[in-house]
Amino acid sequence: MNYQQYFRDQLVQLQEEGNYRVFADLERQRGAFPTARSYTENGPEKVTVWCSNDYLGMGQNPSVLKAMHQVIDECGAGAGGTRNISGTTHQHVLLEQELADLHGKDAALLFTSGYVSNWAALGTLASRIPGITVLSDELNHASMIEGIRHSRCQKRIWKHNDVADLERHLAELPANAPKLIALESVYSMDGDIAPIAEICDLADRYGAMTYLDEVHAVGLYGPRGGGIAEREGLMDRLTVIEGTLGKAFGVVGGYIAASKELVDFVRSFASGFIFTTALPPAVAAGAAASVRHLKQSNSERHLHQQRVREVRDRLDDLGIPHTPNPSHIIPVMVGDPVKCRFISDVLMRDYGIYIQPINYPTVPKGTERLRITPSPVHSTDDVDRLVSALGELWTQCQLARSPMAAQ
Amino acid sequence: MNYQQYFRDQLVQLQEEGNYRVFADLERQRGAFPTARSYTENGPEKVTVWCSNDYLGMGQNPSVLKAMHQVIDECGAGAGGTRNISGTTHQHVLLEQELADLHGKDAALLFTSGYVSNWAALGTLASRIPGITVLSDELNHASMIEGIRHSRCQKRIWKHNDVADLERHLAELPANAPKLIALESVYSMDGDIAPIAEICDLADRYGAMTYLDEVHAVGLYGPRGGGIAEREGLMDRLTVIEGTLGKAFGVVGGYIAASKELVDFVRSFASGFIFTTALPPAVAAGAAASVRHLKQSNSERHLHQQRVREVRDRLDDLGIPHTPNPSHIIPVMVGDPVKCRFISDVLMRDYGIYIQPINYPTVPKGTERLRITPSPVHSTDDVDRLVSALGELWTQCQLARSPMAAQ
Ligand SMILES: Cc1ncc(COP(=O)(O)O)c(C=O)c1O
Ligand SMILES: Cc1ncc(COP(=O)(O)O)c(C=O)c1O
Repeated sequence: MNYQQYFRDQLVQLQEEGNYRVFADLERQRGAFPTARSYTENGPEKVTVWCSNDYLGMGQNPSVLKAMHQVIDECGAGAGGTRNISGTTHQHVLLEQELADLHGKDAALLFTSGYVSNWAALGTLASRIPGITVLSDELNHASMIEGIRHSRCQKRIWKHNDVADLERHLAELPANAPKLIALESVYSMDGDIAPIAEICDLADRYGAMTYLDEVHAVGLYGPRGGGIAEREGLMDRLTVIEGTLGKAFGVVGGYIAASKELVDFVRSFASGFIFTTALPPAVAAGAAASVRHLKQSNSERHLHQQRVREVRDRLDDLGIPHTPNPSHIIPVMVGDPVKCRFISDVLMRDYGIYIQPINYPTVPKGTERLRITPSPVHSTDDVDRLVSALGELWTQCQLARSPMAAQ
Repeated sequence: MNYQQYFRDQLVQLQEEGNYRVFADLERQRGAFPTARSYTENGPEKVTVWCSNDYLGMGQNPSVLKAMHQVIDECGAGAGGTRNISGTTHQHVLLEQELADLHGKDAALLFTSGYVSNWAALGTLASRIPGITVLSDELNHASMIEGIRHSRCQKRIWKHNDVADLERHLAELPANAPKLIALESVYSMDGDIAPIAEICDLADRYGAMTYLDEVHAVGLYGPRGGGIAEREGLMDRLTVIEGTLGKAFGVVGGYIAASKELVDFVRSFASGFIFTTALPPAVAAGAAASVRHLKQSNSERHLHQQRVREVRDRLDDLGIPHTPNPSHIIPVMVGDPVKCRFISDVLMRDYGIYIQPINYPTVPKGTERLRITPSPVHSTDDVDRLVSALGELWTQCQLARSPMAAQ
């Protein structure tokens, strides 16, 4: 077999579909974020980033950077080992305590990323509890799907956020059989939010565990940034809360928070936790500083929501269609991969605005979109420039406007 | 089902087998490594770490720390997105160039860890090339096994480092069918080294791709730290070289280096690459500085090998049995999980020496061991204290000595 030719053919096919991905090469500028330098053929150019998941700008928060600098000076660069073999440092232990406290749980366990936490925790629970059935929302993130798939357990896929459909599945399973319901709070690409309380009711009624991915909610919702479950007073009803340290907390890493026994079980059996180098102590310290900061400070969360409202209102004024939802994510639907990339390219080239086109496989084909993520560090001037650029492009490309638009 | 009780029962079983893991809670001390503080019930105590995979002490190399500090100051903490959605920073691009150059390949691709690089790259190649058979050495690392398993491809497990057995399997497969041979260079728990040249010969003869995990060799072998394949002049014969930035390079992260097409293929299709936050720019910059340093400097590698020889000779003098091998890993076999933990506990408590016991599932049951990893930053005095502590313990516990021991 000619392997190289096979790879080339597959890549050409991606290109023809419009799904070939070109990464923007950026240099974030501490203190000036959301401004970044974009490295192009003509050298670096200044752009405003409108698609970052550093939702609150915590990636430049002085307390986070100070903690990282300090621990690099005190402890050096890496952890030097897996958690079991010399890689557990005091910074990991303190961060896990901080995270358990954030979610009101006994214990927490740190992973190298949110992806690995979902994959490893779900994969371990689902493969190591004999006879378990995992009931998974159809729009769950790739990392959850891969973990469930990896376990080779029985599974049921229920209709997105559809409690009646979930109940139908639960009712079909033997009352005593082990079950786990897996869902997200804020779905990252549509920005809708799961009916968590009703799902917990079902879990209680049918004796199921619950596993909630709060990756796009931790730091952002709840009086201490514990996520949607905190805001709704539901944290103690969930078996596992999973989160990331790489989005609103601005650093990198992932975790689960749960009972002492469950956490110890995953710690003891999860291949993806055991057989990998621990995160650098300085990363753990930076993340802990970020979590601590957002437990005490609500100003970032308030400003964030305000900025999101402002962008939505301004888009409405111009009739630029965006999917309504109760979260901070603003999806502007384009519905075509080639057009989506074209708009993104023009925004970058002519307006210095960076919004990555979101294409398959991140979203289903035909739902290609621009996903706008306003943050407290975007200024009113940034919003002006964004909205007027989109307005011009909508005219130039003769894209559809919402009916109730002001113009 | 009573889930909590189930978790408890499983944990008790681990404890009864002696396989329950207790993590040492350390604080690395920059500049003083391998010295660290160990947090115990009685407060922090000074220990010497003898089981770190920061093999060369690069985790405290000034050029690495300087690069990290500088990029935190310039760019902030996290990358703020996946590689596709605002998370590719110039530091990632530069590191990938550095790694491609290290291995003499067209291109390289960065992952959040070595574990994820193996899992994602093997999982993608094996699932996306129709009809492929993966031929995997029976002692391959968990991350490779999970990636291969995940792909659900056809597989053949060949006897460890046994070229004849590998050929037997290859000969049984159709000549034109796609094939991939997966192996490590230095096997991390026994320290033996694969016959890479002979395996490449077979790959050529039978039209197979080769995938080499150099996790325990990059930075350590070869004139520029390219690993065993560099040392033996074989880099261009391997289809994929995989490595970590978390061991000899002292930071965190993983990668593959290969042809432009193969790298682009994995970049475009690997779930574990696509759907996760990129490493912090400062981590990428620190890793790049480490790779650059070890391309130019051989002194760490020389001192490392010298220290390994010194420890081996001193153990031989006392008849403390260790498995001979051609690498830097010194396995001292104990063969019982409870005894292994006991020795480790006494070393820590009475001698301030930290060597984590290596038990199942990291090694097969019955081959429990102490795995000693000397480094250039261990002093002669450190070696004296290690060897005399082991000598005393060997007497106290009446453990077997090698026949040709001096005493
Ligand atoms: C819902 C969801 N879960 C998990 C992840 C993975 O988290 P991380 O980026 O920390 O790997 C992501 C995004 O990356 C996500 O959108
Ligand atoms: C052979 C081998 N491959 C891969 C890995 C994973 O690398 P990382 O620690 O960077 O995840 C390890 C150890 O952790 C290993 O021993």
